[in-house]
Amino acid sequence: MPAISKTINKDLKEERDKVKFNIEEFTNWFYGGSEKVLEKRKIENYFLSDKSLNLETDTSYLSYKEKYEEAIRRSCIVYPKMLKLHQELGGTEEDFRKIMDNLRYTMSAIQKEGNPFMLHFGMFTVTIMNLANDEQLSEWLPKCVNCEILGTYAQTELGHGTFIKKLETTATYDPKTKEFVLNTPTLTAYKWWPGNLGHTVNHAIVMAQLYTKGECCGIQPFIVQIRDLETHKPMPGITVGDIGNKVGFQTVNNGFLAFNNVRIPYKNMLMKSSKLSEDGTFIKPKNAKQNYGTMVFVRVYMIMDVVVNMSRAATIATRYSMVRRQSPINPNDEVEPKIIEHMTQQYKIFPAIAKVIIYKCMADNLRNLYQQITLEGTKGSFERAPELHALSCCLKAVCTNDAAKTTEILRLACGGHGFLNSSGFADNYKNATAAQTYEGENTVMLLQTARFLIKSFTKAKNGEKLTEGVFYLNDFVKRNGKREPFDDSIRGILRAIQAAAAGKISSAWKHIEEKKKFLTVEEATNQTGIELIRCAELHCYVCLLQTGIEEIEQIIKNVSPALREVFKNVLELYAIDNVLNMIGDILQHVDMTNADIDKLQKRLEAVLTFFRSSAIGIVDGFDLSDAVVSSTLGTYDGNVYENIFEAAMKSPLNQEDVNKSFHLYLKPFLKSNL
Amino acid sequence: MPAISKTINKDLKEERDKVKFNIEEFTNWFYGGSEKVLEKRKIENYFLSDKSLNLETDTSYLSYKEKYEEAIRRSCIVYPKMLKLHQELGGTEEDFRKIMDNLRYTMSAIQKEGNPFMLHFGMFTVTIMNLANDEQLSEWLPKCVNCEILGTYAQTELGHGTFIKKLETTATYDPKTKEFVLNTPTLTAYKWWPGNLGHTVNHAIVMAQLYTKGECCGIQPFIVQIRDLETHKPMPGITVGDIGNKVGFQTVNNGFLAFNNVRIPYKNMLMKSSKLSEDGTFIKPKNAKQNYGTMVFVRVYMIMDVVVNMSRAATIATRYSMVRRQSPINPNDEVEPKIIEHMTQQYKIFPAIAKVIIYKCMADNLRNLYQQITLEGTKGSFERAPELHALSCCLKAVCTNDAAKTTEILRLACGGHGFLNSSGFADNYKNATAAQTYEGENTVMLLQTARFLIKSFTKAKNGEKLTEGVFYLNDFVKRNGKREPFDDSIRGILRAIQAAAAGKISSAWKHIEEKKKFLTVEEATNQTGIELIRCAELHCYVCLLQTGIEEIEQIIKNVSPALREVFKNVLELYAIDNVLNMIGDILQHVDMTNADIDKLQKRLEAVLTFFRSSAIGIVDGFDLSDAVVSSTLGTYDGNVYENIFEAAMKSPLNQEDVNKSFHLYLKPFLKSNL
Repeated sequence: MPAISKTINKDLKEERDKVKFNIEEFTNWFYGGSEKVLEKRKIENYFLSDKSLNLETDTSYLSYKEKYEEAIRRSCIVYPKMLKLHQELGGTEEDFRKIMDNLRYTMSAIQKEGNPFMLHFGMFTVTIMNLANDEQLSEWLPKCVNCEILGTYAQTELGHGTFIKKLETTATYDPKTKEFVLNTPTLTAYKWWPGNLGHTVNHAIVMAQLYTKGECCGIQPFIVQIRDLETHKPMPGITVGDIGNKVGFQTVNNGFLAFNNVRIPYKNMLMKSSKLSEDGTFIKPKNAKQNYGTMVFVRVYMIMDVVVNMSRAATIATRYSMVRRQSPINPNDEVEPKIIEHMTQQYKIFPAIAKVIIYKCMADNLRNLYQQITLEGTKGSFERAPELHALSCCLKAVCTNDAAKTTEILRLACGGHGFLNSSGFADNYKNATAAQTYEGENTVMLLQTARFLIKSFTKAKNGEKLTEGVFYLNDFVKRNGKREPFDDSIRGILRAIQAAAAGKISSAWKHIEEKKKFLTVEEATNQTGIELIRCAELHCYVCLLQTGIEEIEQIIKNVSPALREVFKNVLELYAIDNVLNMIGDILQHVDMTNADIDKLQKRLEAVLTFFRSSAIGIVDGFDLSDAVVSSTLGTYDGNVYENIFEAAMKSPLNQEDVNKSFHLYLKPFLKSNL
Repeated sequence: MPAISKTINKDLKEERDKVKFNIEEFTNWFYGGSEKVLEKRKIENYFLSDKSLNLETDTSYLSYKEKYEEAIRRSCIVYPKMLKLHQELGGTEEDFRKIMDNLRYTMSAIQKEGNPFMLHFGMFTVTIMNLANDEQLSEWLPKCVNCEILGTYAQTELGHGTFIKKLETTATYDPKTKEFVLNTPTLTAYKWWPGNLGHTVNHAIVMAQLYTKGECCGIQPFIVQIRDLETHKPMPGITVGDIGNKVGFQTVNNGFLAFNNVRIPYKNMLMKSSKLSEDGTFIKPKNAKQNYGTMVFVRVYMIMDVVVNMSRAATIATRYSMVRRQSPINPNDEVEPKIIEHMTQQYKIFPAIAKVIIYKCMADNLRNLYQQITLEGTKGSFERAPELHALSCCLKAVCTNDAAKTTEILRLACGGHGFLNSSGFADNYKNATAAQTYEGENTVMLLQTARFLIKSFTKAKNGEKLTEGVFYLNDFVKRNGKREPFDDSIRGILRAIQAAAAGKISSAWKHIEEKKKFLTVEEATNQTGIELIRCAELHCYVCLLQTGIEEIEQIIKNVSPALREVFKNVLELYAIDNVLNMIGDILQHVDMTNADIDKLQKRLEAVLTFFRSSAIGIVDGFDLSDAVVSSTLGTYDGNVYENIFEAAMKSPLNQEDVNKSFHLYLKPFLKSNL
């Protein structure tokens, strides 16, 4: 075995020496101020320094069952620590949020394949806070907060996901005993997928069709105890278990749940909105209008997760590419260059770094917008709510799609060693790709945004003035879709993307109108689905670039000249990479020449060259500790080969010279002289 | 637990009843005749019906080590069966090839995470056949063929992959003892990645720098025994082990290997090409020209793997989409439609089906071309060899990239249930994405093709006539790059893609020329890398469509009218989907109007509608047995929910009501009243 040294890799040090801006200044911007950075580091260290977590163990070698058991063990260390810290910080909701925000990425170092308690606060407690009346709140909330019970949220069924109206689980009110009787009438009615449900939680919010007085009153939420608090055995009439192995999230403990005449008391239907009187009379909520608030809120967090995911992947690929040497550029060069010298490698990595920053701007912006619009709602103004909802839908889809795609591009950019589990990309990808489906499947999300865009376009056609985010449709209609010459300033690029988006929306609108002659509007919309998806994507690119421009214009007013250059180049790279990736859409609606495209290509190459000396500074500035990066290729010290070697030594196969399968199977086969 | 019925799902039966062509006729085309289909089914059944393999066990629940042990157990059943069958069939090389071809996909049912013996025949034996002299052949080949020894091929090192000239392992000839002394001078010199190396094989071909008489004579192949045949312990001076967990291929047993003064006899250097006399004089091979043959041959097989991979994924997604019901199209529809009714769903699935067929045509064509050009080589003509090499490079990259992308699109098209491991997509993806890196990293592959294209363009500029595959560059130069109006026939679409490819090559050529004023040609080429990648991709699309057109023109002469319609529509869908995905490239070099694009969009929608009634027939016609499809969502009977349920029951967590972690960790936590 080789002697392993662990000083900073000299190639990486050489890169850091070239960085011209103050990295800590960037970090302070990224986390919203130096105090927040300190706090973040403190909380992270509070969790990660706990030796009892045993974080050096590589859990990927365990069996499925052992992984689950280890995840429960770790959660039972982390959650008491969390509750303790919450009390120490002051015990407010804001303190709690602070810890939870931090755990969103620290947990990736502790529970790489998912947290079996995640939905207790994230969905169970939150739903009780949102949907319970005062009496129910005082009964349940303390138990939730103190973790006397553990719960999850059970909505999706084996045969039913997106379209919740058709859920099959029934809750029939029996006024004689003042109980609800829960049943699972078919195989497709099995609750299927809820996280933490399999063998972990003892309670669940169950979404079921309420039947009373022989009539169905739609989907309502019920609190159901599913396991005994002393024995953890399923309650009578309950069938509950694990849905089995998955692409990722192996320790989230997604479960199934079925009911056979399970009786729960009257008080267990959450009644803040719809109500049932004790005699079984159903009372609809006053304001039946859907509240998009929670969904938008969840999506803000999903975009933040995208930022964490992509920043982690970009950190790994950047550091590795500055240490790995391969393939001389000039055939007679004696030393192989760092692979970052290859232009194709820069093109795989640097746009990802720029996106992290633009998406971070967007996430902050969306959170502010959410707060503003929630405030407007309390004052009775809902004008901007549909636009916010539409924005959150397409952002959810575009950003999570991009996170999955980007993490794979970056893994592949690390060649063979990227395929090692210890590279850290696999867990990153599994989490990223899961987000493409949960909390609103991405195609469904894009079609929701498209519906808003088509409505808006109709309004624009009718001369109505639109809300700010789609004002560009008014412009397009006003100029009758007439092409304008391409202006290659950043705002000119934005206008070009706006023209492409408006042009596509106009085209889809026209095609729906044509199809409506023979079809219902819904059928015509379905038939135009392919174009509608693209409308929503292009609209999303408009919003992202616009936000990027506006936010960065503000940022550069408040940072040092050196950091100003970095942000300007981030915007330049993001905008040019973006527009070059949608040239087909642009050329249909903007007067852009081949010479314009040539110029953009040259600007792309130039800005990549700028990034060559800033990239390591930016990814260091994301301030992800080695534990959070969790990658042999991406540690701060850059000792890639030593790390890979040490990680390999953890393989259980390497704990013995000869595996028993040699004696059992291999030797008899080799000696059989076939 | 629900009663589970297993008749053919009625929704799927309804789909099959609509199919208008003879499915068996399609299958016969796909496998090259009815005899081959029968043979395929027979061989497949010979392996899969062996009860001792225990194929019902879901190995994904095992630990890393247990997975390896089970893989060895299964291989020690499959390989004797294979050798027995080989003798029964007649024992010829052709018989062997037949079995191996079949095992390429049957193995996916037996060793989902890779075969720990795979490289014994695939690389070890083949290398001996190619590089051993007669004496060496007679010593080693019988042992290989009878599996008295097991071997692998050890080239890649921890610090060295693509650029093999810089490998560090040394083999120093000692003329006194007539031995080579092997050493691993540094950590980065560790052999790293060879499949089957960790704890399985006892021999390896080791590629090492030959030193003799104090001089380095470059990389040469050596046969090295690495483990004792009786004890399986590493031989003296050998360090060998497992490189640890990976994104996939968990049972391929990739390993590392290091040498500390390991002595091997003179006769163990493979000497068909380079030679060393016993006194240590190095003799260069007469024909030092690189032989691309083996590489091209391997890539033919890789494209066939892409076909198997994509056909499996398409089968799963198609069947599932005809059973799964979700989201009414018209809001008041009582029954939810099959999800295949959604246009966006058709667009995710049907182009993948068309690609399977086009790629299959390409693989057949490439194999023929390989045979022709090999034959030409034996006659001393090498004119077409560079073109074949360039073609095989870009095809390797484009097809494996597409297989990885497509299998993920299809998994996502199956929503939440696609994320279940039992959906079968995960193993499919891991295999598909590994192929993006091994046997030539894809970016490197594309740059190789691009180099050929730039050379060809220079020739065209100089008025030289090119070989057939790049003849379109002559056309482009002749018309001075002048745009031609778009012709929307299939051959017109091909011409448009040719124009786009030639235009991009011309642009990259021009940019290299400009940069050469300040840089070496290699540096200029590196700086133009982003454009060069696109050149190679576009060239590949040209070749694929051209081959598709030519092959399908032949096929439709020999099939029934109903099947003729299917093939015509496959070509239509492939061509239109293709051209719409590269509109940006087309618009720069072809006079195409927005009205043209509109028409293409409508044709896309129309051909998807045709596919709606053929898709199930085509995927059934791929003739993949349920064992090979290996998916709860994709069985022939379409009993999706029953399958998912049964698979979940196999989870080890479901073998007991309460997991021990409740008593160990969870209960103390819940009772602690924090």
